[in-house]
Amino acid sequence: MSKRKLGRGVAVAGYGMSKFGVLPGLDCRDMFVDAFKDLVNSVDKGLDPKDVEANYVGCCGAWNWEAQAGIAKWCTDWANLVPIPSTTIDNACASASVAIRNGIIGIASGLYDVVLAGGVEKMTTLPTEGTTLVLATGADKTWECYAGYTFPGLYATMATAHMNEYGTTPEDLMAVAIKNHNNGAINPVAQMPNTITQIMEQRQARAREKGKPVPGWVTEMDFLHDDQYNPMVAWPLRLFDCCPITDGAACVLLVAEDIAKNFTDTPIYVTGTGQASGRALHSRDTLTSIPASQIAAKQAYEMAGVGPADIKIAEVHDCFTIAEVMAISDLGFFKPGKDAATAAAEGKTARDGIKPINTSGGLKCKGHPVGASGAGMIGEVFHQMRGEAGARQVPNMDVNLAMTHNVGAHGTTVVVQIYERR
Amino acid sequence: MSKRKLGRGVAVAGYGMSKFGVLPGLDCRDMFVDAFKDLVNSVDKGLDPKDVEANYVGCCGAWNWEAQAGIAKWCTDWANLVPIPSTTIDNACASASVAIRNGIIGIASGLYDVVLAGGVEKMTTLPTEGTTLVLATGADKTWECYAGYTFPGLYATMATAHMNEYGTTPEDLMAVAIKNHNNGAINPVAQMPNTITQIMEQRQARAREKGKPVPGWVTEMDFLHDDQYNPMVAWPLRLFDCCPITDGAACVLLVAEDIAKNFTDTPIYVTGTGQASGRALHSRDTLTSIPASQIAAKQAYEMAGVGPADIKIAEVHDCFTIAEVMAISDLGFFKPGKDAATAAAEGKTARDGIKPINTSGGLKCKGHPVGASGAGMIGEVFHQMRGEAGARQVPNMDVNLAMTHNVGAHGTTVVVQIYERR
Repeated sequence: MSKRKLGRGVAVAGYGMSKFGVLPGLDCRDMFVDAFKDLVNSVDKGLDPKDVEANYVGCCGAWNWEAQAGIAKWCTDWANLVPIPSTTIDNACASASVAIRNGIIGIASGLYDVVLAGGVEKMTTLPTEGTTLVLATGADKTWECYAGYTFPGLYATMATAHMNEYGTTPEDLMAVAIKNHNNGAINPVAQMPNTITQIMEQRQARAREKGKPVPGWVTEMDFLHDDQYNPMVAWPLRLFDCCPITDGAACVLLVAEDIAKNFTDTPIYVTGTGQASGRALHSRDTLTSIPASQIAAKQAYEMAGVGPADIKIAEVHDCFTIAEVMAISDLGFFKPGKDAATAAAEGKTARDGIKPINTSGGLKCKGHPVGASGAGMIGEVFHQMRGEAGARQVPNMDVNLAMTHNVGAHGTTVVVQIYERR
Repeated sequence: MSKRKLGRGVAVAGYGMSKFGVLPGLDCRDMFVDAFKDLVNSVDKGLDPKDVEANYVGCCGAWNWEAQAGIAKWCTDWANLVPIPSTTIDNACASASVAIRNGIIGIASGLYDVVLAGGVEKMTTLPTEGTTLVLATGADKTWECYAGYTFPGLYATMATAHMNEYGTTPEDLMAVAIKNHNNGAINPVAQMPNTITQIMEQRQARAREKGKPVPGWVTEMDFLHDDQYNPMVAWPLRLFDCCPITDGAACVLLVAEDIAKNFTDTPIYVTGTGQASGRALHSRDTLTSIPASQIAAKQAYEMAGVGPADIKIAEVHDCFTIAEVMAISDLGFFKPGKDAATAAAEGKTARDGIKPINTSGGLKCKGHPVGASGAGMIGEVFHQMRGEAGARQVPNMDVNLAMTHNVGAHGTTVVVQIYERR
C-alpha cells in the first residue's frame, strides 16, 4: 500500500481557523463556522460555498464536552452547507489529519472536486481534571486508563525511557518549550503568544504588584526549574512541557489538482500521505520512539518520492516536549537519541536553524484543540510555503516542500503528509 | 457531485458479524474480532489478513458506553491488523454505512485494494434510560435534546405528522412490525427471532405458568393494541414500533473490482453510493419524509444508472416502524402517503411481495447495534444476492440488484448504496 499513488492529484487552496484559546459561549459548531468564514476569505480567487461537495470534521470529545455526537453534520448545518455529505472522524488528537486525509482520498477517487476538511474541539467546559479524564478515553481503557494512566503519565513514561536509554535531560526537553514559545510569541493566532522570558517578566511583575516576593530568575531555565511556577505534572514533565487545553476549530479547502488554479495562483499540492496505527504502550517493542510515526512517514516519503533531507520545515506533534524529540527522529530529521534530544537546545530546529520545526509555536504554544490540531498544522505550512508567515517566515529558505505530522493519542494513530509548492 | 462516477470499481467479497443481542462481558473490540473472524471464514477463496490495507469502523457511543474513544484502532489491534490505518467514524446510526462508503472511496482512489469496513456498538452497559440519553446526543443538542426530545419522541413527531397528512393509522405501522418479525423469525442471527404470534404465545404460556390471567388475544393486532404487553413509548409509537437495544459488530470486505474474483466467484459490485446531510427536525420543510434520503437515493440511482423499479430488494432503516414507511416512499418504491403506509399490511413488502423490504427482519427484529447496523444491512443483501439466505431467500426472483438505506439520527445523515451481482 505504501507505494501506491493517488488516482488524482489534490491541492490545498485555502485555510481558516477560529480563535484558539478559552472561548466561553462558543460551541463546536460556532467555532467551526468562524473557521469556515476565515477559510472563505483566504481563497485568493474566491470560493462559492455552493461548490463545496463534502465536509470531513475531526472531533475527539464533543460527546462528553458538549453532549453532542456526530458533530460534522451540525457544523455543515451551521455553515449553511446542507445537504452535502458530512463525516465525523475520531482518531484522538489526529482526528483532523485523518479527516483531511479522507477528504484527499475523496477527491483522488473522482467523487469530489472540492472538499472542506478539518476539525473542532471544545475542551474548556469541564475543569482540567475532567478534561484530562475525557482525553484519557483516547488511550486504551482496558490496560491503560483503568490502571490510572492519563496522557501526561503516558508521555512521561516515554520521557523517562528516553532519559534512561539516551541520557536525555529535563533541560533538553525545556529547550523544546523555549524554542516553541519563541515561535508562538510572534504568531498572532497563538493561544500563548509569549516567549518564556516574557512569561517570566509577567510573573515577576505580578508578584511585585501584589507585594509578594519577586522571584529572582535570571535565565529561562531558572524559571523552568521553579517548582512553584513550573510545577511537576508527571515526572519528568513539568507544566511547560505540556500543551495547553484549547477550544478551537480549523479547516482547509482541498481541491482537485487540475482545478486548483481556479482558486489561487499558489496552491500547495499534497504529494504524500501516510497513516498508520499503533498499539498500547505496554505492547510496543520500544518506548523511545513511536513506530506508527515511522511507518506513516515511510508511506508519505515513498508516495512523494522524497526523503527527510528534502523537507524544508515541518509541523510535528508536540503535545508534550518529549513528543517533539521523538517525532524529529521518527521522521528521519535527526538521529534517535542525543542528536534529536539536543536539536532544540543547539538551535537546529529554530526558525533560522537547519530544520525549522513548529514555526507556528506548535501545539505547545499555538494551542491544541485536539480534534482540530492537524488542520492547524497545515495552516502553518500553507502560510510558510506561500511566504505569508510574516514575522515567523523562515529566513534564507524557499519553503517549497513541507511536512505535517499528527499523532493520535500516544501513537495509536499517526498521519504524515507532505506538501509541495510548484 | 451526484453524477460523478468512482474512479475504480469496488466489490463486496465477504461479510461477517458477531452475535447481535445482549452480550455481557464482551467489549466493542471483542465483538469486532468475532465479526472479523466470521468475515474471514466467509471469503470463498480465502483471505490472508495480511492483505487487508485499512480498517474503517463506525461507532456512535463507545465514548459513553465503555469509556473508550477512537474505537477503530483498538479493533485493529485486537484483530492483529496493526499497523494498517484505522479510522473511527461517528455518523450516528449511519456510522457503519459512512465507514463503508469511505472504504469504497479509498479503493476507488487507488490507495487501497482491500479494505475492511463496518461498525460496532456496545449499548447494554447502561440501563435503558441511560442508553436513550446517550443516543439523544445524536440529535441536535441545542434545539432538540435540551428541549427534552429523545429518539422515540422525534420519530413519534414524524409519525403523527404522517397520520395527520395522510390518514396513516397505528395499524399501518403495526403491520410493518408484523412483517419484519415474520422475516426475523427465520433469521438465525436475529436478536428477536420470533414472529409476533410466537411472542404472543410465549407471553400467554408465561402467564399460564405463573397462574396469572391469560390474555385472550386472537390476532396479532389484539396483542399489539394491548397497553400492558405493548405499552406506549411515545404516542403513537408503542414498544413494538421500536427496535431493540443491541450489542454487536458487523463488517464487510471491500476489494477492487479487478481483483474481486481472487476472493470469490460471486462478488457483489457497488454500483451506486450516495450520502447526504439533513437539518434538525424544526428546520425542515416536511415532517413526513426525510429529505436526505431522497437526495442520497438520487445520487446512488444516477451513479448506478438505475431507478427504483430496477431494485429487487432493499434493507431500509426501520429504527421505528414509521421510518420504514417514510423510507420506502423516499426511495421511490411507493408513493408518499397511503401507498407507502399500507404496503406492509397489503403484503407488498413481504418476502413474496412485489418489493421485499427488510428480509433480514430489519433493525426492528434483527437488532440495531447503532454503529454496526449499516454493515448488517449489507450482510443481508450479500446473502440474498448470492442465494445464501436460506429460509429467507426471496422466492421467484433473481436478486441481481439490491439497495441498502441507512439513516443517521432522524435523517441528519443518510447513506444509500446500490449493489449488482453480474
